[in-house]
Amino acid sequence: MAPKVMICGDIVWAHDEVQELFRGTADVVRMDSPDRADFLAGLKAGGKYEGTVAVYRHNTSADRIGVFDREIIEALSPSVKWIAHNGAGYDQIDVGVCKEKGIILSNTPGAVDDATATTALYLLISALRGFAKAERNLRAAAWKAGLDAGRQHDLTGRTLAVLGLGGIGLRLAELAHAFPMRVIYHSRSRVAGAPAWCEYYGTNRLDEFLGAADVLSVHVPLRKDTEGLVGEGMIRKLKRGAVIVNTARGKVIDEAAMIRALEDGHLGAVGLDVYPDEPAVNPRLLEFPNATLLPHMGTETQDSQRKMEVRALKNIKDFLTKGKGTDPVPELKDLAAKL
Amino acid sequence: MAPKVMICGDIVWAHDEVQELFRGTADVVRMDSPDRADFLAGLKAGGKYEGTVAVYRHNTSADRIGVFDREIIEALSPSVKWIAHNGAGYDQIDVGVCKEKGIILSNTPGAVDDATATTALYLLISALRGFAKAERNLRAAAWKAGLDAGRQHDLTGRTLAVLGLGGIGLRLAELAHAFPMRVIYHSRSRVAGAPAWCEYYGTNRLDEFLGAADVLSVHVPLRKDTEGLVGEGMIRKLKRGAVIVNTARGKVIDEAAMIRALEDGHLGAVGLDVYPDEPAVNPRLLEFPNATLLPHMGTETQDSQRKMEVRALKNIKDFLTKGKGTDPVPELKDLAAKL
Repeated sequence: MAPKVMICGDIVWAHDEVQELFRGTADVVRMDSPDRADFLAGLKAGGKYEGTVAVYRHNTSADRIGVFDREIIEALSPSVKWIAHNGAGYDQIDVGVCKEKGIILSNTPGAVDDATATTALYLLISALRGFAKAERNLRAAAWKAGLDAGRQHDLTGRTLAVLGLGGIGLRLAELAHAFPMRVIYHSRSRVAGAPAWCEYYGTNRLDEFLGAADVLSVHVPLRKDTEGLVGEGMIRKLKRGAVIVNTARGKVIDEAAMIRALEDGHLGAVGLDVYPDEPAVNPRLLEFPNATLLPHMGTETQDSQRKMEVRALKNIKDFLTKGKGTDPVPELKDLAAKL
Repeated sequence: MAPKVMICGDIVWAHDEVQELFRGTADVVRMDSPDRADFLAGLKAGGKYEGTVAVYRHNTSADRIGVFDREIIEALSPSVKWIAHNGAGYDQIDVGVCKEKGIILSNTPGAVDDATATTALYLLISALRGFAKAERNLRAAAWKAGLDAGRQHDLTGRTLAVLGLGGIGLRLAELAHAFPMRVIYHSRSRVAGAPAWCEYYGTNRLDEFLGAADVLSVHVPLRKDTEGLVGEGMIRKLKRGAVIVNTARGKVIDEAAMIRALEDGHLGAVGLDVYPDEPAVNPRLLEFPNATLLPHMGTETQDSQRKMEVRALKNIKDFLTKGKGTDPVPELKDLAAKL
């Protein structure tokens, strides 16, 4: 029996395009289970997914079979050796269990930087200029009633504080530098190759970093140690009227603390693309005139969707033909190096 | 009687700040007429505005006394010698009558470039990415329902066609170049000092210019010869799915032609900050999901409002103390040079 590659969740590529990509290497099977029980049954001997060695995964698969937790990853093992996740953030997959089972997980770094950073820039402009509220005004036939130019700001000359200078944070830094905004960043360690105009604030200067920010833009992945990272403490160290932009993951921010700071005016505005419990959105957020709220649109472009799929599929193709792909997630780089 | 400076329309400066600026030079009188008749009466001998030599003007004054047409400008003459308009566009003032009466009109070039170009960038992102619709979705508890990533685009690598490379068009070109977008421009003549990466298309290559555009951004002032400039002919020479952004003046575009092109799908999206008959907005525009619509927010920031007021007041101060200000509008530069 030929090894199988499973397509698990949304893909724009047509089925015969994917088959063509893997011709002579693997058969392609589409995950079509309506629920988790059917999916787990399909993985068993004689099941429709038997023989799967690599999985292409999109977050939309969670709508039917749930996230890739211990139960699913144990069921994939030992047949599956590579999970190619389509996306930058892989918090829906238990990377610890992957490691335990010797399964390599790859993501699609870089492919989403441009689209996500553009989303952050849009939220940043809207937050500083009050544009989302302005459009609601227009659509309610209220023109400029109640809008106050005295509270809106230009970007130029203001300070953008980037929390986490990965690919997306760096890309936003470049776009903001064009105005120019002053750009500073904080991460656990200095980023090699960061531009000279982008000043590093280490952990010993975190308070200073927060105090300097007109805009704090969040670009750290969701992990156990980053959940709630932007909490009451961090938020209150921002200056009064500062703005928070989040295009990373909702749970990196303590939502209750953020809402309190919007309520008492400590935060001047927020621009959010992500929420702790998507697709649910806390209805309280909708009541703040100074909140711009997008439904996780960060990577939603034809261009980046295609780039991400190509990158995910290429990891599987390389694994099958060369023994390893190029994008194992950081936690599994050591394991992947031994392949 | 000391000469008077009239403050006509909105100003953020406090009255005593303005008085301080003109101390020893002129008295400051605030235009407080509820209607045109009262205003015209005030300009007559013995009226409250008698002795006015210079007028600071903001478009909001039109709400009470109407635009500066022949009737008003003739009533200002011969006492008034300088009108300092707060804004880049001065289409609410009849510059021909000013010339006839020997009144110099100044505007505030440069002060609004940054804020207006940032507005154009916001509209451009929203139009290409479908963000305005996405936010309406979220607020209607529909998350991503009906949104189609396959129709949304990254900015990077796409072509921005700038119609009119003045200060605002050039500033937008710089911001778009950061992605980079390819930037091309059309104007009546080549702009001296335009960056090398910003290619000029003269009138003989206008069709080619329009055909290359993914986004056409309008930055020409409203004059008799630019009214309806972007009409059926220009719009149909854009490629199918192209986007129009307008932060200049509503009447530069033939709105009916634009609406037809949205209806039949020739235009992919529009991002508008200006309308032909503000504050009225054609309700048909509100029905297109791919329209981002702001209530003329181009210069609505604390920073640019302050910059514009300083620039307008400085023209009056310089006229009173040095005999001439720095920003006469192009049509009156010759006249101003003779002062």
